[in-house]
Amino acid sequence: MKHLLILGAGRSSFSLIQYLLETAYSEHWLITVGDSNLQLAQEKIQNHPNGRAVRFNADNLEICEVLVQNADLVISMLPHFMHRPIAELCVKFGKHFLTASYLTPEIKALNNKAIAQKVILLNEMGLDPGIDHMSAMQIIDGLKKDSADIRAFKSYTGGLVAPEYDTNPWNYKFTWNPRNVILAGQGTAQYIIRGKYKYMPYHRLFSDLEEITVSNYDKFEGYPNRDSLKYRVIYGLENTSTLIRGTLRKAGFCQSWDAFVQLGMTDDGYKVENSENTTYRDFINAFLPYDLTLTVPEKVAQFLGVEPDSEIIKKLNWLGLFRDEKIGLENVSPAQILQHVLEKKWKLAPNDKDMIVMQHIFEYEFDQKQYRRVSSLVVKGEDTQQTAMAKTVGLPLGIVAKFILKDEINLTGVQLPVHSQIYEPVLKEMESHGIQFEEEIEEI
Amino acid sequence: MKHLLILGAGRSSFSLIQYLLETAYSEHWLITVGDSNLQLAQEKIQNHPNGRAVRFNADNLEICEVLVQNADLVISMLPHFMHRPIAELCVKFGKHFLTASYLTPEIKALNNKAIAQKVILLNEMGLDPGIDHMSAMQIIDGLKKDSADIRAFKSYTGGLVAPEYDTNPWNYKFTWNPRNVILAGQGTAQYIIRGKYKYMPYHRLFSDLEEITVSNYDKFEGYPNRDSLKYRVIYGLENTSTLIRGTLRKAGFCQSWDAFVQLGMTDDGYKVENSENTTYRDFINAFLPYDLTLTVPEKVAQFLGVEPDSEIIKKLNWLGLFRDEKIGLENVSPAQILQHVLEKKWKLAPNDKDMIVMQHIFEYEFDQKQYRRVSSLVVKGEDTQQTAMAKTVGLPLGIVAKFILKDEINLTGVQLPVHSQIYEPVLKEMESHGIQFEEEIEEI
Repeated sequence: MKHLLILGAGRSSFSLIQYLLETAYSEHWLITVGDSNLQLAQEKIQNHPNGRAVRFNADNLEICEVLVQNADLVISMLPHFMHRPIAELCVKFGKHFLTASYLTPEIKALNNKAIAQKVILLNEMGLDPGIDHMSAMQIIDGLKKDSADIRAFKSYTGGLVAPEYDTNPWNYKFTWNPRNVILAGQGTAQYIIRGKYKYMPYHRLFSDLEEITVSNYDKFEGYPNRDSLKYRVIYGLENTSTLIRGTLRKAGFCQSWDAFVQLGMTDDGYKVENSENTTYRDFINAFLPYDLTLTVPEKVAQFLGVEPDSEIIKKLNWLGLFRDEKIGLENVSPAQILQHVLEKKWKLAPNDKDMIVMQHIFEYEFDQKQYRRVSSLVVKGEDTQQTAMAKTVGLPLGIVAKFILKDEINLTGVQLPVHSQIYEPVLKEMESHGIQFEEEIEEI
Repeated sequence: MKHLLILGAGRSSFSLIQYLLETAYSEHWLITVGDSNLQLAQEKIQNHPNGRAVRFNADNLEICEVLVQNADLVISMLPHFMHRPIAELCVKFGKHFLTASYLTPEIKALNNKAIAQKVILLNEMGLDPGIDHMSAMQIIDGLKKDSADIRAFKSYTGGLVAPEYDTNPWNYKFTWNPRNVILAGQGTAQYIIRGKYKYMPYHRLFSDLEEITVSNYDKFEGYPNRDSLKYRVIYGLENTSTLIRGTLRKAGFCQSWDAFVQLGMTDDGYKVENSENTTYRDFINAFLPYDLTLTVPEKVAQFLGVEPDSEIIKKLNWLGLFRDEKIGLENVSPAQILQHVLEKKWKLAPNDKDMIVMQHIFEYEFDQKQYRRVSSLVVKGEDTQQTAMAKTVGLPLGIVAKFILKDEINLTGVQLPVHSQIYEPVLKEMESHGIQFEEEIEEI
């Protein structure tokens, strides 16, 4: 009997644990779920005979050690900064370690030890990063096998509300960590277009958009992520002259979001003076030039170069940002205040369903002809637990755990899911869960 | 005989050490100047019988201890991050400690120990911060004594090239640390106007300008510094509804500088790919949208919304930013490349002289009438060593050292020069060195 240890039983673990429990009988697994909140772990286990819930605190290294020692494979769903000690224990005791988080230098440093212990430390095995790597690499390896010359690769992913539940003027609701949405893109986006490096500072990011079309859906748009350049090496696309990875939103969202960026309201670097007693109206006014005669909405309109009755002013008004109501939060940053406002208005209703949209766009030359190949994935949530986000993050982890424990994947050391040994079986099994890309190829 | 220890013998220490040596006979001082470069310290001492040069390395705590133990007063002209261990030794051995740097929490934490040892740790005792505090507080305390109601306080300081030597199209040369000029303003400026807090993000800073007029000079302009709000408490201006501190430049400079900010070229947060072999033209092109037909200068003009033959394009061209020459620097950030470009073109020529301009603007009510009081300081450099910058940074430190050692200033603990006991004698003596404010008061 193989033992799996899952650390972290939050919302994002639901589909992962569900998949593991469903697979536990046939694979003869024992599943231990640890969380600092024992009840949360128990709820996820649902009294399954092969499941066990434990109270787990990452600070308590002794308990960690015992749990890891008793496992064959560990999946960490903890926040990324908590991975390191767990991964170190996995290497020490020769256990496989999986996570959906971005690979860090700390984990990378464990490579030689992991190889010596014959275990895999597999990172970026969720949705984005995760499914994006696997689905892109499947196409890239296929094109390379055909000796096609890949000229351009663009890839966009977004977590959205499903169209049927897209009921607010912003066409957006929080389906994932709100703080990450508020701070998204801070820094400088780096990518390459037709052989020219491009550096896009944050204050221009949300006007640097690509139109994205998915059949049967309204238009989307994408803005560049921070770190596209490093994927040239990871994907083996050193000779591809255009490479952008980005975030996908409903068309029109970025232009509205840009108002917050231009005003300065997404800044998390300082605290707003006397924030508790500041009104929302005074808060937005603090980012506008002083003017004795104009109202706050008129000043925002003037600042943005739009009419006072334009859509963006209506959207800001709908959020309550012109109200004389006190914020009531002590010692908070502009980003924290904005998050507080948006969490009230962009909350998923109990019956709302989320949606994941991913699209890869390739341009390549094959047999002296130019082609454009577009590969799109749309996943909708089933309910408030089996969300599209939980499924697309959790299933790749669960499926790959199965193949590792069956010794059908025998890579060791620090890895990303860019190898066919990983992506072929995982993508194939995901299709049976309705996670399937649609492809269009046209000559250009 | 009193012993003074000066740590750091760089360019900025020239006027300070000159003043101390001139005063050494009459005050019976022994002056020790320490620098990691012994020759630099020796040059500053100029074989003065009361002077002594020592090789000094801040890492060598044993030598530091001996030097501090033998001194009565220590002036640190070292980079700000090196002050802490020196200040700790001063407190340990009961020695006074002076610096021109901004007060840090680490120094602040030594307050109780300094009081117990009956020594002063005096910070911000240079130009800006320094002379600005003293001259502002002299006016503020005077107005308060008259029961005037101070409505507004704005204060701007800039280090510039003197008008006679202002020979380049940018109207600016480096008279001080170039890196600080490149990175100036990054973050968010915080100030208050007519009781309304204002938060100005970096990407809007260089268009948020105040016109500044000084008689007999061309127009200047000021942009806000990051930290105006904390001076409400330090200056006792809690009821003053407008408070801005800022940086002063020749009129027109900020609009041109803003081109770098808008493009993203002042970013120090990442390295430019293959910077060594990138040309200046490709470097600026990396911040522009991809376009197949326009030239790089045409794209910059389009991006900035100006004509291709406009002043700003000419200024960028004058800097060589459109040249096909390789940068030749490995692994550098955009800010480092920009600094490299500007250091070549904005360098002071051997006979150039610098200039300091400071202006305080007060608005107040007195006897039911409204007044505007403008207090301006212009200091020009005498030569390449007695620069305006070296004089205005060094003289306040030298003069206050004298009054502390004569026991005419007997404040202890962590202090800023906001007390009349400090600013009265220091400002008075500075007048004899030609450092004198001119005042205009008008009813408004």
